[in-house]
Amino acid sequence: MSRVAYVNGTYSPRDEAVVHIEDRGFQFADGVYEVWSVFDGRLADFDGHMQRLHRSLNELKIEIPMTAAALGVVLRETVRRNRVRDGIVYLQVTRGTAPRDHAFPADVAPSVIVTAKRIDLSKGDRTAVNGAAGVTQPDIRWGRCDIKTVGLLPNVLAKQAARERGAYECLMYDEMGLVTEGSSTNAWIVDENGKLRTRDTQANILRGVTRAAILKLVEAEGVELDERAFSVEEAKKAREVFVTAASSFVMPLVSLDGVKIGDGKPGPIATRLREIYLEQARREAI
Amino acid sequence: MSRVAYVNGTYSPRDEAVVHIEDRGFQFADGVYEVWSVFDGRLADFDGHMQRLHRSLNELKIEIPMTAAALGVVLRETVRRNRVRDGIVYLQVTRGTAPRDHAFPADVAPSVIVTAKRIDLSKGDRTAVNGAAGVTQPDIRWGRCDIKTVGLLPNVLAKQAARERGAYECLMYDEMGLVTEGSSTNAWIVDENGKLRTRDTQANILRGVTRAAILKLVEAEGVELDERAFSVEEAKKAREVFVTAASSFVMPLVSLDGVKIGDGKPGPIATRLREIYLEQARREAI
Repeated sequence: MSRVAYVNGTYSPRDEAVVHIEDRGFQFADGVYEVWSVFDGRLADFDGHMQRLHRSLNELKIEIPMTAAALGVVLRETVRRNRVRDGIVYLQVTRGTAPRDHAFPADVAPSVIVTAKRIDLSKGDRTAVNGAAGVTQPDIRWGRCDIKTVGLLPNVLAKQAARERGAYECLMYDEMGLVTEGSSTNAWIVDENGKLRTRDTQANILRGVTRAAILKLVEAEGVELDERAFSVEEAKKAREVFVTAASSFVMPLVSLDGVKIGDGKPGPIATRLREIYLEQARREAI
Repeated sequence: MSRVAYVNGTYSPRDEAVVHIEDRGFQFADGVYEVWSVFDGRLADFDGHMQRLHRSLNELKIEIPMTAAALGVVLRETVRRNRVRDGIVYLQVTRGTAPRDHAFPADVAPSVIVTAKRIDLSKGDRTAVNGAAGVTQPDIRWGRCDIKTVGLLPNVLAKQAARERGAYECLMYDEMGLVTEGSSTNAWIVDENGKLRTRDTQANILRGVTRAAILKLVEAEGVELDERAFSVEEAKKAREVFVTAASSFVMPLVSLDGVKIGDGKPGPIATRLREIYLEQARREAI
């Protein structure tokens, strides 16, 4: 847990890290966030997350609170003050604090919150070696999942459904039975024909930064890719299923709704992608 | 604006009314809210809002923080400390504060926030006499709009769209072109045949407390009611269009996307319903 948090210009001890009750993040989910993985105190996919942050803020017409360089300083200082070697740094930007009214307030300064925490990476590595369980349920989220907002209650309910069924992640599917993404991850399969599949970002999904990084690696590895939606049924018959995110990297799912995927062990493509993604993310962290 | 706020057991001056940055209301929109109108220091539709609060909490498996009676004491004390004669009292309950993780945390106490503010009722009365402008846009909200959550960003964007087009409210419509509800109101029309119409609550809409109170009044008044969805096109050809909510009561819309409704003045049914709703709400406020 973050021991020191940056909140609107001040580094505060955890217990004193507060926002006003009229912060629009609290009353309207009127804010966005990003999570960077931290390796050896440096941030992975720095630019990718920063660019997506700017896109999210632009889509919601929330003012960009400071330059990417200045924000980088705050992110790294928060990492440093929390003595995080390996872990994550979390950034939340909201429209700011104003008397409650749905419409955008005038002349409000955005709120900026940064926390950082250590993560024992060996834990995720062990889960990845054995593979994790997945479940599925209908995607009931709103129509702008391309914006990384803190309006995460549907994701919370999906993740909770996974936990209650003893699973690691919940894959969500649309009215056509096609998987959109996981509750906090993008979803991939290696289909019956050996093709790597992940949904295209024209769909109502988040444009995963880790997803994009992996797409580049896939190309370099010469894995055959079909960037196209797959159904829950296709996933259950797939050779491999895995999910990707900034904090879980590449995580193989070895069952889906209790149905064994492939031989019930992490497959070669997910395992290889995790390895080379981690290698690159560490190497390129800044 | 609330000068004193109740936050987790303490009455604080406005400036000190804060929640922790790890409150799940702030990071996940994992919370619900209610708004009561206040007349002469007393709360309108007390039981209706309290029952809906309990339903929202139950649906999300958030613990009920205190009995309805105890909460009533807090609501009234907040009204009293803010010297609100006519206005609103706002209650927000979140799942509580816990280290960030999508799934429900164990052993967490819900957060309870109450604010109250004065409203000059004559302002709304004047708007109601002249009627207000409405606009329409697609409803892009999630699939559980029956739960009154603080995940209000789609509503914020709809209200903002209304303001940018010089309008009071935005009516949202589904894929079939049928109106669901307003960004912070339920929507009604008196159709071409003189029938009062409002969407049934089997649809993905909020079960408005004011809506329910007005349905009862409609029955008593002998107005012919058809509780059935209407399209944007039907609304534009309607004799009357109006919206209802706890804080705006009954508000006639005299134009929709620039199209004049009826003769461009508030109609007799909306006007009458506003009058008798206000009369009853005042009389029964406790």
